[in-house]
Amino acid sequence: MKILLLNPNMTTGMTDGMAEVARLAASPGTEIIPVTATRGFPYISSRAESQFAGTITLEIIADYQDQVDAVVVAAFGDPGLHAARELYDLPVTGLAEAAILTACMLGERFAIVTFTPDMIAWYALSVAAAGVQSRLSGFHAPERQSGSLGNLKVDMRAELTRLAQEAAAGGADCVILGGAPLAGLASEIAEEVPAVLIDPVACAVRQAETLALLAPDGASKGSYRRPPGKATTGLPAALAAQFEGDG
Amino acid sequence: MKILLLNPNMTTGMTDGMAEVARLAASPGTEIIPVTATRGFPYISSRAESQFAGTITLEIIADYQDQVDAVVVAAFGDPGLHAARELYDLPVTGLAEAAILTACMLGERFAIVTFTPDMIAWYALSVAAAGVQSRLSGFHAPERQSGSLGNLKVDMRAELTRLAQEAAAGGADCVILGGAPLAGLASEIAEEVPAVLIDPVACAVRQAETLALLAPDGASKGSYRRPPGKATTGLPAALAAQFEGDG
Amino acid sequence: MKILLLNPNMTTGMTDGMAEVARLAASPGTEIIPVTATRGFPYISSRAESQFAGTITLEIIADYQDQVDAVVVAAFGDPGLHAARELYDLPVTGLAEAAILTACMLGERFAIVTFTPDMIAWYALSVAAAGVQSRLSGFHAPERQSGSLGNLKVDMRAELTRLAQEAAAGGADCVILGGAPLAGLASEIAEEVPAVLIDPVACAVRQAETLALLAPDGASKGSYRRPPGKATTGLPAALAAQFEGDG
Amino acid sequence: MKILLLNPNMTTGMTDGMAEVARLAASPGTEIIPVTATRGFPYISSRAESQFAGTITLEIIADYQDQVDAVVVAAFGDPGLHAARELYDLPVTGLAEAAILTACMLGERFAIVTFTPDMIAWYALSVAAAGVQSRLSGFHAPERQSGSLGNLKVDMRAELTRLAQEAAAGGADCVILGGAPLAGLASEIAEEVPAVLIDPVACAVRQAETLALLAPDGASKGSYRRPPGKATTGLPAALAAQFEGDG
Amino acid sequence: MKILLLNPNMTTGMTDGMAEVARLAASPGTEIIPVTATRGFPYISSRAESQFAGTITLEIIADYQDQVDAVVVAAFGDPGLHAARELYDLPVTGLAEAAILTACMLGERFAIVTFTPDMIAWYALSVAAAGVQSRLSGFHAPERQSGSLGNLKVDMRAELTRLAQEAAAGGADCVILGGAPLAGLASEIAEEVPAVLIDPVACAVRQAETLALLAPDGASKGSYRRPPGKATTGLPAALAAQFEGDG
Amino acid sequence: MKILLLNPNMTTGMTDGMAEVARLAASPGTEIIPVTATRGFPYISSRAESQFAGTITLEIIADYQDQVDAVVVAAFGDPGLHAARELYDLPVTGLAEAAILTACMLGERFAIVTFTPDMIAWYALSVAAAGVQSRLSGFHAPERQSGSLGNLKVDMRAELTRLAQEAAAGGADCVILGGAPLAGLASEIAEEVPAVLIDPVACAVRQAETLALLAPDGASKGSYRRPPGKATTGLPAALAAQFEGDG
Repeated sequence: MKILLLNPNMTTGMTDGMAEVARLAASPGTEIIPVTATRGFPYISSRAESQFAGTITLEIIADYQDQVDAVVVAAFGDPGLHAARELYDLPVTGLAEAAILTACMLGERFAIVTFTPDMIAWYALSVAAAGVQSRLSGFHAPERQSGSLGNLKVDMRAELTRLAQEAAAGGADCVILGGAPLAGLASEIAEEVPAVLIDPVACAVRQAETLALLAPDGASKGSYRRPPGKATTGLPAALAAQFEGDG
Repeated sequence: MKILLLNPNMTTGMTDGMAEVARLAASPGTEIIPVTATRGFPYISSRAESQFAGTITLEIIADYQDQVDAVVVAAFGDPGLHAARELYDLPVTGLAEAAILTACMLGERFAIVTFTPDMIAWYALSVAAAGVQSRLSGFHAPERQSGSLGNLKVDMRAELTRLAQEAAAGGADCVILGGAPLAGLASEIAEEVPAVLIDPVACAVRQAETLALLAPDGASKGSYRRPPGKATTGLPAALAAQFEGDG
Repeated sequence: MKILLLNPNMTTGMTDGMAEVARLAASPGTEIIPVTATRGFPYISSRAESQFAGTITLEIIADYQDQVDAVVVAAFGDPGLHAARELYDLPVTGLAEAAILTACMLGERFAIVTFTPDMIAWYALSVAAAGVQSRLSGFHAPERQSGSLGNLKVDMRAELTRLAQEAAAGGADCVILGGAPLAGLASEIAEEVPAVLIDPVACAVRQAETLALLAPDGASKGSYRRPPGKATTGLPAALAAQFEGDG
Repeated sequence: MKILLLNPNMTTGMTDGMAEVARLAASPGTEIIPVTATRGFPYISSRAESQFAGTITLEIIADYQDQVDAVVVAAFGDPGLHAARELYDLPVTGLAEAAILTACMLGERFAIVTFTPDMIAWYALSVAAAGVQSRLSGFHAPERQSGSLGNLKVDMRAELTRLAQEAAAGGADCVILGGAPLAGLASEIAEEVPAVLIDPVACAVRQAETLALLAPDGASKGSYRRPPGKATTGLPAALAAQFEGDG
Repeated sequence: MKILLLNPNMTTGMTDGMAEVARLAASPGTEIIPVTATRGFPYISSRAESQFAGTITLEIIADYQDQVDAVVVAAFGDPGLHAARELYDLPVTGLAEAAILTACMLGERFAIVTFTPDMIAWYALSVAAAGVQSRLSGFHAPERQSGSLGNLKVDMRAELTRLAQEAAAGGADCVILGGAPLAGLASEIAEEVPAVLIDPVACAVRQAETLALLAPDGASKGSYRRPPGKATTGLPAALAAQFEGDG
Repeated sequence: MKILLLNPNMTTGMTDGMAEVARLAASPGTEIIPVTATRGFPYISSRAESQFAGTITLEIIADYQDQVDAVVVAAFGDPGLHAARELYDLPVTGLAEAAILTACMLGERFAIVTFTPDMIAWYALSVAAAGVQSRLSGFHAPERQSGSLGNLKVDMRAELTRLAQEAAAGGADCVILGGAPLAGLASEIAEEVPAVLIDPVACAVRQAETLALLAPDGASKGSYRRPPGKATTGLPAALAAQFEGDG
């Protein structure tokens, strides 16, 4: 099975870090195909950037859809997730969705810890989209990001560990470490936090495998059946072809 | 006051129809500046198309931001609304949001009537985004669209009137006629339906005026303060400049 | 257009303050007709007082209904709003409702700041009535009111500013200053608070204008159609006539 | 123990019917003191009428508060319930509230059957006030009332039985017969309906007894502590005294 | 009337304490029949223990069903409540359910105070089962239990009083003292706390009486009608007979 | 990896059918260990039976915990799921939970189709426990079960297919076939239904694998940490040992 690990951010180091976690979590025989956006932003951290990045998600899938069995949108916040799910006959999930739903099987309430408060309003949309607001105990973020984006797991380790402990004290049975730069941190700090630590990349890879096995066409029916083909103007060619073809 | 009536669809006839309704609803002294997308789709009718159209919304505002006092995203479903609200220091509303919130002052429960069932899943996102699901009595659509997109108000008038009556019988105090092609229909069929008919274009123009008066910078604080400037790659120039500039 | 600014409190100084804000917010050509209750309480601050004041609201509208195009119930908490909406063929809104729904277009989450904790339980009913509890970040009030009711904007300015800042820090994109005596304060402290400040009187006047334009009969259909005429005993004459007449 | 059965409607025949049911439900030693409004409406059936009737509720309690141990607001819809709870140091409940909360111990979901669709929007407020919307399976009413108000139990018995059966088929474990004129009907048709039939008068009397025993001052703390004394103008004397006295 | 006060815990001292409170709350003529589990746990304090204890509840009712008119499951958390309600033709309530629903008539929001944080996740299920999460202001517990289980009311009195005061300050109009060992404490500390104190045992006895009077068969219809008879293996004889008999 | 497929029903034919589906869904290298209850009921179909069966679940896990890596409670309705999750240091999921959360990645709204209306109230508890009521479009069941329990997939195939089609028409993107006897039917009728068909056994096996990989101790922290050891009386020996040992 081949899984597209689609990073809608442009930072390849981030993709590499996620790919490593993804390969550790994947089943034997699963191949992880990491792809990094070549347009957009080094790192998405707002609803506005996510709006644009969501179209990058759609473009990249257009190019890879025939080569993979499932897609992981590898940015917490899941830009373009629902649009991709509607447009392609492939299973698609995202870091936020997969982590949130997996956490629901490992505790009653989950918290989301991230590295800057700028993310919270955006990430909150993923909790709402999953429909599980009643199971969220809260968001926890430092007052501001410190250290470099490429080295957050080291630079902010102590701070993020403290936030995860705070989340546990606040009633979270599970703590999701949200944000692509944090891939792999969950297992590193698990011993220090009295909550189940959740790594979104690992969750997403496993959920993508499951969807590919159980529903090879993904969310392809009902309101997610492919929209009727329609003329387009000014779209990248592969994406235009996808929109123009009938479902 | 100048209000950008931003049609993220590419059909100028649709823009013309909406501009006519907008001018009737606007206060004396308000100038309506209608703009039609030159990229994208003739008519948006899915979450996937809305994802792409949302970036068109952002692009168009980049070009017009210095010339207007407020923006109306003139497609029911409001593609790019929240992203635009975050990215620009201007009030922004959309047909769906404005109609829904206005309806909340004209009845206890509102219904949304539209011309094809394809729209419902997409429109439902706007109700959820407003947070007023408890006030929605339901969606009503025909089994399929009939007639031509440019002439729906005539071709489907009887059908849509019947659906609005059905909505009223089902407990709706107000009926929103959702979908850009239906602009102006509310006043035409009002006498035939025992519910308050809501025209989204009229609502949106009035709400945009109100926002421009009361909050000239729009939603510019808290989680909607402008994201920090950030390098971009491959974006249209005006949009890139907006993302790259500090808020 | 004429808008009845109906203060169900008996304090004319409060009415004057609100009328001033109302005139600044109104469109050219709109006339504000301020009226102060001549029965009831100097200032309403409980559900019990609101129950009584709601009938005063109904009585006053009975007297003015033929002279105005829309009504603003000018007490935050909106005594009698829904009853008035049902009984009269006029658009009616209230300070709380209009502020809350307007805030929903200027941020994701709003807070309500007021000058005494006594108000909170009562004001909470308006948030619930609007159906937008999920968008409320919280109430903020001092431990107790200080200064004189007629001079609160001056006497409590520092305290209320601090509370608005606290609300912003707690996640509010918008802060509504609730309570008739605070009319006009929003613009005075806007620069000091990192949230969009919302003035309920300004919102209500603008929303009343919009309703009058778009739905001159107001909420007059469905569950808000006028109740059938019915005999009454012991009601003020104009109010009795209204209840006794058929809708 | 003495319980004030306060009918805010002016129809004494209705009071008599309710008093009979109340006496059957009351514990040995409980005295039912029926009182009928002498101002207002023969029968309340709208939010507007309920607004006015709520003040009648407050007035009547002012007169009887020293003679009784608890109060039942004996109109389904509970006009003035929360205001009375705040203003008086006595337990107060209402037909709707008591029936709804009692039903929650006799099934998972309850329906409300009434004799005219005019009541539904008003009654829905009581379900919302109790906070148990998730346990309501729905409202069921005939298209219109038939027969005379004083004889509904006979004139509409077949119709109401059919509606209760319909409610049961729709998933209701319990069916509340809402509306003062229906007092006593529950036991008469219980055998014909596969749901537990709930008589609001019986529930309210029993709940009032329980409150009087367990909390003789009623809801007298927190947000329901008596509002501070305040000058009043134009209120009936006993009610004025109550508002003017400190809690 | 006879009410089974069924303690699914094995500690008879606890049963004695509850029986004393129950007798004080009961109507004249009501006989309290206290029974203590002879299998299970000294004291239930987790969802896992509650799962097992719920079957003990079912077993005990099987033995007593012909001798009583109603059942109180006398452990806060209500193990087996809904199963018992379905299986037996008797009214059944529990300490948590009865306290929660009664509190809803004595304030807008209630808090639950208990003596160890271990209980919270379990007790939260009772709030959710009642459907009134919107009326809960929160749980309050010490960091850990202190003193002996048999003497908690004395050993932790100061601590629990402080927690109840904290709950009141946090917006609770009512405070429920949750946990069988706390029976009787509510009246002892009522004067020290500015909220209505709720004793679950007293509530449950009164509610059981009301259900027995109004619905002698209890929740016996709709989804609570007795399940069809079914073969069983390995169940205690009386319980087997109950499951095997037709409803 | 070894997964305990724990059928709390006593019917081995049902276990065999589920084991077959489980093996098809499992990853290479996963061993399915099917176990059938030897006490309890041939088939669980009520909340009362589920209460008892939940303790059977706990007992069986006590015997197998050292031999397996994860547990699937193989009855839709998940008897004992949350108790098992709390009591054992193993990942545990159930047919209902796993199907529901998986469906949330394959559509916006899911329906549950089952073979008798008796199941609905019980199954509804699983939707509530997952917290995703807003994503449920509804339950669909025939008026009554037909055919033999052991042969339902054949006997009721046409009826269940029709119900799944009805669910799709009612707005479900996914249809879960709930009930152990229906294992394997999803793939058989998938072509006939315009919705994604969900097989709970397949979902549960895959989710159990994922949990075992990502969180080998399961839900073992926060409110799901093992309860403190406690004396027990009258429990099966292995279960007693589990409760008595410290977590």
